[in-house]
Amino acid sequence: MMSDDLNILILSCGTRNKIVQYFKKELDGRGLVIATDCSELAPALYEADKHFIVPRMNDEGYLDAVLSICKENKIKAVLSLIDPELCLLAEHKQAFLDIGTIPIVSESDVVEICFDKYRMFEFLVQNCIPTVKSYIDKEQFYSDVEAGVINYPVFVKPVRGSASINISKVTSKEEIELLFSRFDNLMIQEFMNGTEYGADVYIDMISSEPVAIFIKEKIKMRAGETDKSVSIKDEHLINLIKKFVNKAGFKGIIDIDIFKVNDEYYISEVNPRFGGGYPHAYESGVNVPEMIINNIYGNVNLDSIGMYDDGIYMMKYNAIKIVRGLAGKQL
Amino acid sequence: MMSDDLNILILSCGTRNKIVQYFKKELDGRGLVIATDCSELAPALYEADKHFIVPRMNDEGYLDAVLSICKENKIKAVLSLIDPELCLLAEHKQAFLDIGTIPIVSESDVVEICFDKYRMFEFLVQNCIPTVKSYIDKEQFYSDVEAGVINYPVFVKPVRGSASINISKVTSKEEIELLFSRFDNLMIQEFMNGTEYGADVYIDMISSEPVAIFIKEKIKMRAGETDKSVSIKDEHLINLIKKFVNKAGFKGIIDIDIFKVNDEYYISEVNPRFGGGYPHAYESGVNVPEMIINNIYGNVNLDSIGMYDDGIYMMKYNAIKIVRGLAGKQL
Repeated sequence: MMSDDLNILILSCGTRNKIVQYFKKELDGRGLVIATDCSELAPALYEADKHFIVPRMNDEGYLDAVLSICKENKIKAVLSLIDPELCLLAEHKQAFLDIGTIPIVSESDVVEICFDKYRMFEFLVQNCIPTVKSYIDKEQFYSDVEAGVINYPVFVKPVRGSASINISKVTSKEEIELLFSRFDNLMIQEFMNGTEYGADVYIDMISSEPVAIFIKEKIKMRAGETDKSVSIKDEHLINLIKKFVNKAGFKGIIDIDIFKVNDEYYISEVNPRFGGGYPHAYESGVNVPEMIINNIYGNVNLDSIGMYDDGIYMMKYNAIKIVRGLAGKQL
Repeated sequence: MMSDDLNILILSCGTRNKIVQYFKKELDGRGLVIATDCSELAPALYEADKHFIVPRMNDEGYLDAVLSICKENKIKAVLSLIDPELCLLAEHKQAFLDIGTIPIVSESDVVEICFDKYRMFEFLVQNCIPTVKSYIDKEQFYSDVEAGVINYPVFVKPVRGSASINISKVTSKEEIELLFSRFDNLMIQEFMNGTEYGADVYIDMISSEPVAIFIKEKIKMRAGETDKSVSIKDEHLINLIKKFVNKAGFKGIIDIDIFKVNDEYYISEVNPRFGGGYPHAYESGVNVPEMIINNIYGNVNLDSIGMYDDGIYMMKYNAIKIVRGLAGKQL
């Protein structure tokens, strides 16, 4: 029966070929993996069983286009690999549920907090979870500098905005004044001189409990590359992550950035989606696509936290996708 | 017989997994592919049949370490994937030949010209090959600006130095004065407002003739990514490349950067090694590893220039290599 197929839609697939590959492998013929992107030059499109070129996310009619694809292809679950679209999916969750499609994403208010670094800071402080000192009030920052609570250098960055776009490392009041006079909605954040970790966490969509936590130390190379990591296990950090995700109420797959300074862990940021480093977790046996599929079938996942080996190294390299006959179409 | 094996050594393999894979595929059991790097975290090491961690290239004893590996593993040919090492291989060509190992690299003087952007500019001008206007004499530049021969913006960059490290786009005499007062060995280069192309060229090691030329247009994406390209064919550009490589006397595999502005091609830079975009050529049927193997067997390659389809698109994405049990060793 066509309608028994477990078809999954991956939005804005971009260069995330591995995610598409993993879902295809785990579905193993029980349904199709369908991918979309606004560009025909998104290589992950060509890993999928079927793909669609859609309008840009901000174009009018985008949501309707996605809903149509879901309906026509009997999509059972939809997920996105880019940040701005997570808000869209979370906000319009009901519209998807109405046509039988489950968005794999946290609730709208939770997603919003992730994209406002200062609100996330406040949330963490209120819940007594160590985090990176942050200020939107520069006068408060100056007085904390005088009191010796914080020291230069610090980072000045937009409160909203993903990745490391427009982040300045500054060492003086003059620079801060200049940046604040030029740009709106900035925040000042403590410089964390320590080790960086990433955690891939799956929070069961049915039980709302974290059932998988994979922790990796990011390895800094001489040339500044960060695309190597090694799996680690730490009971203390696992407990901190459990506490945090329970308090915040995440659902589905999230990626958490963490610092360790002087043997203390600090939660820094959350991407409420598959992180760029997720393949490390998958290849180490932390099978989130399978957990998502279980949830779509209505099955609760059992707790498998910490079920991976430490000391597994991941190193990225370039693979390529070759496609013929695109010329002239929507490039 | 052991000594009949065609073993190939790839130095400083880094993240160039594809190159190692291609040589293994083309050798198809006729010999081993052996790889080296100074870091255990170079993923391409783990594609090879055998690998060695070696000292850093600038450390004393590096050359001896490489020569020992060649001798002990009966290496028939050696190549490097990073620029500084090409000079080393070219300079010590005879030491390798003496132990029965062929370095796949151009002659030393030719390699040197590639790493001195101003000498390359002079060479191209002398040979009437269109190139990017360049100055080491800023007064000459200022007078050409006055004469209307060149206009701002221009690039100021180190005469030596690979990739795009330390390149500034400048729009005024003041900025040029400032940069020249701060740094030595700078040059001023015309800003080319046009399309960028890359050419992978194989010059037969025996006949010294170019036998393969693969041309791709680099596709600029909105976010500034350049890791997508499309194969093109152009008789005029092929002839320009033939003329250039014959005049310069390259040997083996090289990668050429080209601009097209107002329908005229300009040769910009050469990397006398496998370029980062070579996989596009290989997957389009331009099989340089096979040509290298032919040459090592003493066979001349026939001209196969232009034997590929145009309109083949290449898109990069991240693949990963997983390795267990490195902890504690030379990281």
